[in-house]
Amino acid sequence: MCELLGMSANVPTDIVFSFTGLMQRGGGTGPHRDGWGIGFYEGRGLRLFQDPAASVESEVARLVQRYPIKSETVIGHIRQANVGKVCLSNTHPFVRELWGRNWCFAHNGQLAGFEPPKGFYTPVGDTDSEAAFCNLLNRVRGAFPEAVMAEILLPVLIQACFEYRQKGVFNCLLSDGDWLFSFCSTKLAHITRRAPFGPARLKDADLQVDFQAETTPNDVVTVIATEPLTDNETWNIFQPGDWILWRRGEIVAQGRT
Amino acid sequence: MCELLGMSANVPTDIVFSFTGLMQRGGGTGPHRDGWGIGFYEGRGLRLFQDPAASVESEVARLVQRYPIKSETVIGHIRQANVGKVCLSNTHPFVRELWGRNWCFAHNGQLAGFEPPKGFYTPVGDTDSEAAFCNLLNRVRGAFPEAVMAEILLPVLIQACFEYRQKGVFNCLLSDGDWLFSFCSTKLAHITRRAPFGPARLKDADLQVDFQAETTPNDVVTVIATEPLTDNETWNIFQPGDWILWRRGEIVAQGRT
Repeated sequence: MCELLGMSANVPTDIVFSFTGLMQRGGGTGPHRDGWGIGFYEGRGLRLFQDPAASVESEVARLVQRYPIKSETVIGHIRQANVGKVCLSNTHPFVRELWGRNWCFAHNGQLAGFEPPKGFYTPVGDTDSEAAFCNLLNRVRGAFPEAVMAEILLPVLIQACFEYRQKGVFNCLLSDGDWLFSFCSTKLAHITRRAPFGPARLKDADLQVDFQAETTPNDVVTVIATEPLTDNETWNIFQPGDWILWRRGEIVAQGRT
Repeated sequence: MCELLGMSANVPTDIVFSFTGLMQRGGGTGPHRDGWGIGFYEGRGLRLFQDPAASVESEVARLVQRYPIKSETVIGHIRQANVGKVCLSNTHPFVRELWGRNWCFAHNGQLAGFEPPKGFYTPVGDTDSEAAFCNLLNRVRGAFPEAVMAEILLPVLIQACFEYRQKGVFNCLLSDGDWLFSFCSTKLAHITRRAPFGPARLKDADLQVDFQAETTPNDVVTVIATEPLTDNETWNIFQPGDWILWRRGEIVAQGRT
């Protein structure tokens, strides 16, 4: 199993605090030693850092922790390999261009006997995760050759996630930089921080941050993670089948399949 | 105008020496302050570092210089913007997946009145360079729906470069990780280092390296750059219209259009 980290915010926000907690699970407090990756949207651009090395030992992870990149939408992942060897091409998140946007995807779980039909998007590596991502984009592109809003796209995303989930475990995060879609098959949690902001304390590292000092009263910052990252706040736990579409930190649509 | 840097080698090779020289031109000894990027192939995976900030001031560039990533194929670029604003989505190199491989592209020059037909690959940013890359991949995909060897692909690449060159300046580097294609419209140089290796001294920084100490007798390492990066070696200067296809540091095909 792997761990997911997502962020959706209404202002460019530094995710170093949550990333620091997650990275500890990559070989420190958790067993996810088989690589990690994080993608930060910057306008329509996507800044991607990845390493097949364990995150607690990764030089690139240390850079990301030192270098506060501010972004409105982030997708991160640490990996404990079950399908596919440990190498860069099997490292999440995966990225493809669709409709002139960078789509970014990370998956927690595994799919048994998943052999989707060939399509335009083809996996580079050999994970079931990237195969599912390519299949998802092939479905979207098949249904909508031209760009549509996320709200119109939702039925295709939900139906695909519903089918993947029949084949195993499929928790995922997907974004095109404007919106963030989250789907829970077994385990996912979220928290939305807004004024009045308080202190937060990481479960996995000796680190506390006072968000009051780091934010303005209008900031809305949602963090999504496989398991709650802090131990002094109340996280919302997704139920199996729950999906949420986020934009600028707020829920724009949600449901259960 | 921008500067290109490419490497093709028969063993995973550290490009820090050449990268250090190039980075000095990003706001130091050269005027290319509008971002930089470098992609390193690692197997079928591609490790991409980019920054819209000037390379001499870039924290990410310092990481790349400190952290010797070894690769057989590298494409780098520093930018002096002429078309498109300075932002991450306009920063080279550009990447797309085709036939389950990561294709990476960087361009030096500009194209006037370049409005290619819409196709499957769509630019994310607003540079003529990314538009040309997308058009090139649309042509390749149109001609060859399934993967073919680079040698079979060459006529499509050369014809496309020939046409782009009619519209302005088009020096470029393109790779799928297995081969590296270089095209010169106005300015490009290359050098192949092999045994017996000697010392090399950067033109743009006070740095000398003794490749003898860094290599084995079987290593073959080709570096391609807009202008020679060292001042004590003899570089080969491309003539306008020259193209070369490289694999593992060696020329596998070349010609002039």
